[in-house]
Amino acid sequence: MMKKNDTIDIAIIGGGVSGVYSAWKLKLKYPAKKIVVFEGGDHIGGRLLSVVPPHIPDMVAELGGMRILENAQPLIVGLIKKLNKQLADDNQIELYDFPVDENQNIAYLRGVYLRLSDYTLNPDKVPYKLSFLEKGGSPGVIIVNAIEQIVPGITNPKLTEEERRLLAQNAEFAGEPLYKQGFWNVLYRVISGEAYQFGMDAGGYNSTLSNWNAADAIPWFLTDFGIVPQYKGFKKGFQQIPKTLADFFVQLGGEINLNTKLNGFETIDGKFHLAFKDSTVVADSLILAMPRRSLDLLAPNSPSLQQIKQLIGSVTPRPLFKLFTTYANPWWMAAGYTDKTTGKFVPVESGRSVTDLPVRQTYYWPKNNGKPATKGESMLLASYDDGNNIGFWDGLRPQRKQAWAEGLAHAKIEDPFLGEAQNDKAHLDWFEYMAPTPMVDEVARQLQLMHGLSHTPIVKNAAFRDWGEDPFGGGWNSWNIGVKSSEVRDQITQPIDNLQLYICGEAYSDAQGWVEGALQTADIMLKKIIKK
Amino acid sequence: MMKKNDTIDIAIIGGGVSGVYSAWKLKLKYPAKKIVVFEGGDHIGGRLLSVVPPHIPDMVAELGGMRILENAQPLIVGLIKKLNKQLADDNQIELYDFPVDENQNIAYLRGVYLRLSDYTLNPDKVPYKLSFLEKGGSPGVIIVNAIEQIVPGITNPKLTEEERRLLAQNAEFAGEPLYKQGFWNVLYRVISGEAYQFGMDAGGYNSTLSNWNAADAIPWFLTDFGIVPQYKGFKKGFQQIPKTLADFFVQLGGEINLNTKLNGFETIDGKFHLAFKDSTVVADSLILAMPRRSLDLLAPNSPSLQQIKQLIGSVTPRPLFKLFTTYANPWWMAAGYTDKTTGKFVPVESGRSVTDLPVRQTYYWPKNNGKPATKGESMLLASYDDGNNIGFWDGLRPQRKQAWAEGLAHAKIEDPFLGEAQNDKAHLDWFEYMAPTPMVDEVARQLQLMHGLSHTPIVKNAAFRDWGEDPFGGGWNSWNIGVKSSEVRDQITQPIDNLQLYICGEAYSDAQGWVEGALQTADIMLKKIIKK
Repeated sequence: MMKKNDTIDIAIIGGGVSGVYSAWKLKLKYPAKKIVVFEGGDHIGGRLLSVVPPHIPDMVAELGGMRILENAQPLIVGLIKKLNKQLADDNQIELYDFPVDENQNIAYLRGVYLRLSDYTLNPDKVPYKLSFLEKGGSPGVIIVNAIEQIVPGITNPKLTEEERRLLAQNAEFAGEPLYKQGFWNVLYRVISGEAYQFGMDAGGYNSTLSNWNAADAIPWFLTDFGIVPQYKGFKKGFQQIPKTLADFFVQLGGEINLNTKLNGFETIDGKFHLAFKDSTVVADSLILAMPRRSLDLLAPNSPSLQQIKQLIGSVTPRPLFKLFTTYANPWWMAAGYTDKTTGKFVPVESGRSVTDLPVRQTYYWPKNNGKPATKGESMLLASYDDGNNIGFWDGLRPQRKQAWAEGLAHAKIEDPFLGEAQNDKAHLDWFEYMAPTPMVDEVARQLQLMHGLSHTPIVKNAAFRDWGEDPFGGGWNSWNIGVKSSEVRDQITQPIDNLQLYICGEAYSDAQGWVEGALQTADIMLKKIIKK
Repeated sequence: MMKKNDTIDIAIIGGGVSGVYSAWKLKLKYPAKKIVVFEGGDHIGGRLLSVVPPHIPDMVAELGGMRILENAQPLIVGLIKKLNKQLADDNQIELYDFPVDENQNIAYLRGVYLRLSDYTLNPDKVPYKLSFLEKGGSPGVIIVNAIEQIVPGITNPKLTEEERRLLAQNAEFAGEPLYKQGFWNVLYRVISGEAYQFGMDAGGYNSTLSNWNAADAIPWFLTDFGIVPQYKGFKKGFQQIPKTLADFFVQLGGEINLNTKLNGFETIDGKFHLAFKDSTVVADSLILAMPRRSLDLLAPNSPSLQQIKQLIGSVTPRPLFKLFTTYANPWWMAAGYTDKTTGKFVPVESGRSVTDLPVRQTYYWPKNNGKPATKGESMLLASYDDGNNIGFWDGLRPQRKQAWAEGLAHAKIEDPFLGEAQNDKAHLDWFEYMAPTPMVDEVARQLQLMHGLSHTPIVKNAAFRDWGEDPFGGGWNSWNIGVKSSEVRDQITQPIDNLQLYICGEAYSDAQGWVEGALQTADIMLKKIIKK
């Protein structure tokens, strides 16, 4: 516990990936310096939160971030390699192929049941009035074709990530710089309203196609959906990365304080006076490793942040919601179909199904070896949704937004769905995130409907997380229209000249919502700190 | 101009309807008291804003509130009668029948062109997969039938407004008190997802069916859409009401200060020290006649408001967007049809058309006598929309949210659509709200599409208002789930015991978004002030 007016060299606020990564890197460089991480919540990892469900030891529920893009994210891939060199054999960070869209997965859209293969094989079944040119495309293909119309040449797979970004940043569309335009607005100019709606409904996300900075949205979308993505999941959970970084940092002599919420800070003679509940700490350098909403919450009691309100306000937090449910058996396999040519039953056992119901995306969660669970206790990421749909699930657990302001790490809920194992002390972390009963009842109802089944087994346990809650404000952040993101990205890492105040994290990066973005801005920032 | 430390009896902050109504009533009761209205913006009327378009002297664009429900809103009806008794013959407040849904109006939904009459006459054309029971209903009928399932008996037309409210407030649904549930959540339990979507798309609004307090939403919806509504518009514009109230107040010796923004207030010995930019005023009583967002903006510099944060936070501001366009002739008449039995052409000349495009609702604006414009210069309420669609139009005029914080009454825009009459000094008020060129281009494109026309004449002039902007935050406010609205409504009018601090306005009323609600809470408040 820090004492009143303790003095340290570097204070890092936020124990998410960008915070503990920076802490570790700085401690490696400056072993003699006193470097301390302060985390307001109760765990290391921020929006990486991996919990093992009761009775299913070979699965990990990723309540937060759940994957990387192996072919497009060199920073996280490199970091994993580096960490593994130092980790014992039984502690290696291991990946598996993370399945997403498979032909037999279901799209339940506008009350019509489709297999994903129907998009191209049976375009007349797709209940959207698409134009001649749009018909027969998957939602991804339709949006990528639209993007090619907006920025000709940008979908060329030979371009690097950086080349695509530069192309979009400097592009004009209809006589106006692209960065001054909204993604929704420009998409609406090149495809029909129905194609846009299909892209949103069948794509699974509401916020990705919403009106954010088109020059940022376009390369971002292409990275995730355009080029064939190589998604990888984490056998021991994504949270293993920040936990490992934190361990290495502590082994080097670094200090981490959990449940230590910064209320604000003042700058006096170039030093930072940090106000915590029971103590004040003075630091020579201050790193705020946090997203926009956390900065907004700090600003009223931090005059330096009020100076840079415009920079902080250059992105918009986007809530994401995840709800996991467990069952006695993988009942969704029954929602498969009999292949006409082979006569064989093709079960739904992996990948994800989509719907325009508030459930939006359902992932048939894989085992730690990446294989589907084909019998016995198993788990769904029952709902992964964003945008308006957050409000639907929010209505089933009212009045939770105050938690952070009241000093809680996250909201406690009324009427929890206790499931069958509430006294299982081995799974206290899972039960910390228990879903309320009305939410579980409603998700069960929608899952049954979207799978076309008249019976689904009872839910055994359910856990959820809404990343729109304070202090996160969103699961990811998106650049606002009119912002020159590459300038803000570099400027905000050290926003005030000659002041050792630094900001990093996914919010102000080129890979918003990804750990890659957190590492990118941390690296930009570390260069500025270390060259001094 | 008030001087430093001027002392007054009653300060009223906000020159909207509830503010000037309260000022007038109090001045009538207490002629000797010094009563002063402080309005931060540049006009009296708040969200009532009536401007005459260039070259069309017989129309009034209602950039804000535009109608009343004559059969369900006794307070505004009574007020009009009372005011008219004191007004000269040529200054009377006169109403006209405000047309809304007419059979020949268009519904362009999911890329399909329908007439409103098709809902019931050609249900197979309606591109929503409705159930057996839902099919053949208009969007209003489907929602009303759903409501009857949720609260049996509540749609009985013999019930009074108050009886319906009580029934909903005390109702349970599926074993839970209705006020603890969300309107979206309960609708989803009794109708299909497709029927819900049809109700939203064809109804024209996104926010009314969203997840707000079901016990408040249900009677509110029935008042507006359930019982055959008798909408009335204002021949000289709705803003005539607050302007008349303000005139009467000034005639009685009251004082009004425009462009006088309150920055915060302190309470010392039961008196209110009001901080304006260039002066401080001390008042014995303080009335905040403003919606939630305005209170939120005041709170950081007003300790008393921080005490009642929970009360203030019991509603959610809902943005509304309005864009008016003028033309050389009413081109929309050509979007009519030839009646097969009579052989006559039925033009589209009044009422409103709807679409699921971001335009959402288009009103064929009537002349001041309530009759349609059938030739010559004419006007559309080209887009009236809410919810997500606000973000679409927002993208066509980036970076405007700072205006209020920077001391402007509302945001100035880049690249205004200058139209043909920008130097017309008789219409400075219209030109104050000029729309930007990209917004006008896009609305023209969507209007052409939704009317099925391949040519539409150029826009002559365009004016818009987004009521989501500060200090309003929304065109209306909705009660949050879990709130007992009738308790909050009464409590917030005088939120702190023994302190002469009062709050009124539509935000915390039973008729949110209506002038009726503003008058209701003002009356509740006035009773508390006057009985002392």
